[in-house]
Amino acid sequence: MPFQYLEYYNGTTGLSVGVNKVLFSEQTPFQKVEVYETDTWGNLMTIDGMVMLSEKDEFVYHEMIAHVACFSHPNPKRVLIIGGGDGGTAREVLKHPSVEHVDMVEIDEAVVRASKLHMPNVGDFSNPKLHVLYENGLTFVDDIPNKYDVIIIDGSDPVGPAVDLFKQEFYDKCYAALSENGVLTGQTESPWVPGYHESMQSVFGALKNAFDLSKMYLAFIPLYPTGMWSMAYASKGIDPLSSEVIERVQKGLASFGSSLKYYNKDIHTASFALPGFVREIIE
Amino acid sequence: MPFQYLEYYNGTTGLSVGVNKVLFSEQTPFQKVEVYETDTWGNLMTIDGMVMLSEKDEFVYHEMIAHVACFSHPNPKRVLIIGGGDGGTAREVLKHPSVEHVDMVEIDEAVVRASKLHMPNVGDFSNPKLHVLYENGLTFVDDIPNKYDVIIIDGSDPVGPAVDLFKQEFYDKCYAALSENGVLTGQTESPWVPGYHESMQSVFGALKNAFDLSKMYLAFIPLYPTGMWSMAYASKGIDPLSSEVIERVQKGLASFGSSLKYYNKDIHTASFALPGFVREIIE
Repeated sequence: MPFQYLEYYNGTTGLSVGVNKVLFSEQTPFQKVEVYETDTWGNLMTIDGMVMLSEKDEFVYHEMIAHVACFSHPNPKRVLIIGGGDGGTAREVLKHPSVEHVDMVEIDEAVVRASKLHMPNVGDFSNPKLHVLYENGLTFVDDIPNKYDVIIIDGSDPVGPAVDLFKQEFYDKCYAALSENGVLTGQTESPWVPGYHESMQSVFGALKNAFDLSKMYLAFIPLYPTGMWSMAYASKGIDPLSSEVIERVQKGLASFGSSLKYYNKDIHTASFALPGFVREIIE
Repeated sequence: MPFQYLEYYNGTTGLSVGVNKVLFSEQTPFQKVEVYETDTWGNLMTIDGMVMLSEKDEFVYHEMIAHVACFSHPNPKRVLIIGGGDGGTAREVLKHPSVEHVDMVEIDEAVVRASKLHMPNVGDFSNPKLHVLYENGLTFVDDIPNKYDVIIIDGSDPVGPAVDLFKQEFYDKCYAALSENGVLTGQTESPWVPGYHESMQSVFGALKNAFDLSKMYLAFIPLYPTGMWSMAYASKGIDPLSSEVIERVQKGLASFGSSLKYYNKDIHTASFALPGFVREIIE
C-alpha cells in the first residue's frame, strides 16, 4: 500500500518521499534497516528512519567521499572503509587503477544483504579486490599490522552504532592505522542542523588534534537533511588543494571516461569553499 | 492550530515544515501569498504553495543573487531588480557603496506588504536609494531610457506570473536595458528536478543567444526543492572568474565586515563549479 515516508531532521522540518512498497524491513541487533521502492528516486535505504541512500542520488555521496581521498593520495593501494555496507563507496574506490586491496568493515551484514538484493547496481561485491568483514570498525582499527593508504569513514549518523565514529579515540587509531602519506575522509552531517553541530565540532576537533592537516568539504545531497552535506578530509600532510593533487586529479580522471556524474576537477577544489556560517561552526 | 506545511516538488517528494500559525494569507490578482510562523526557520513566505524564503535561510539566496552580480560589475551605480518583493535582494545590493539607485519592479504589492509586516528584517525599504515600482517586469524593460549596470531577476518559479521571465524575448530586452559593462543574474531552479529542466534550458539558451558570456552557478538553499539551487550569470563580457573580478571581491568585501553569512571570495569562485550531471542539463 503506497504511503509517504517522513523523516523529521530539524525540529519539525522533514523530508517526505512517496513509497510504493516496502522491499526490506529488518530489526537487526544494531538498527532497523529498510528499503523502499519509490516513484522518484528508485529504491531507497533507511537506517533507523534516516535516509542512507537512494539509487538516483547515491552517486554524489559515494563519488565525493571516495575520490577526494583517492586522488589526494599519490598512489593508494590499500584502502579501508569503515561502514559503507551498501557498497557504493567501495565501487568508486575500485575505479582507481592503483588500488589493490579494499577492506570494508561493516558492523551489520543486513545492510550488505539489503543492498545486494534491492540495489544491485550500487555495490561491486564480486570484485576480488574487495574484502567484506562483518566487524566493529571501532575495534578493527585497534592494531593494524598492514597499514592503509586511505581510510574512509562511511558510517551512519551519530545516534546509533556509529556514535563512537565521531570521537577523538577513534581518529587517533585511524592516524596510527595509516601509512606515511595517509589520507582520511568521512561524512560529518549537515551544517544547517543545529542538533548536529556538537558532533561536527567533535570530529573536526579530533581530526585537528590527531592529523597534520584537516579540512571540511561540502556536497549537494538532495535526500539528506537540508541538501547540504559536510565531509571531513584529514591527512598526514597532503593538501587536497595543492597543485600536485589538482594535476593528479586532471590526469587521473582521463581514464575514468564518463563514469562520474558529480566529481570533477572543478568540484574537487570548489567543494572545500565554505560559507561563513559553516566555517563558524568548526572554528 | 499547528499543522505541517507540505510542498511536493519532485514527483511524490516533498518538504514538510511545522507551522505554528498562519500570519498572512491572501489570494491576490496574481497568486496566493502566505506567511507562516514556524518552529525552526522563523517566519516563512510561500507563493502558490512554494517556499520563497524563510527568515533563517534567506541570506543564502539574497547574498548569492546580489553579490555575484554587484562585485562582477566594476562600478554598479544603477541596479534593476525584477521581482524581489520581499526586499532581501535590494538589501544586499544596497550594501555596495557604489550603488546610487535601485529600481525594484514587483508585480504584486502584497508580497512587499507581507514582508514588511512579518519579515521586518528582510527588507531595507526605508533606504532612500530604493524605489519600489508595482509594475510588470516583463513590460518594464521594454524601453529603458536610463540604462542599468546590473539587472537581477528575482522572480518566483516558472509556473505563475513569472513564467515569461524564463523566455528569450525577455532576456533580449534585458540586454538592451543594460549599460556597457552590464551584468545580469537570476534564479533558475533546481537541477535535481527533471520537471524544471526545460525552463533551465530555456533560460540558459536565451542568455547564450542574447549575451556575450553566460554561466550557471549554484548555492545550497535548504528550504528550496532538493537544497541545490541554480542561478544564471550573464554579462556584456565581464567574466566573473577573471582575476580582475576576484581582486575586486577581495578588496570590496573588506568594507562589508561580518554582515555576510554565505558569500565570500572562495564561494564566489566555487559556486561556478558544476557537477557533470548539472552541466549536461544546459550543454
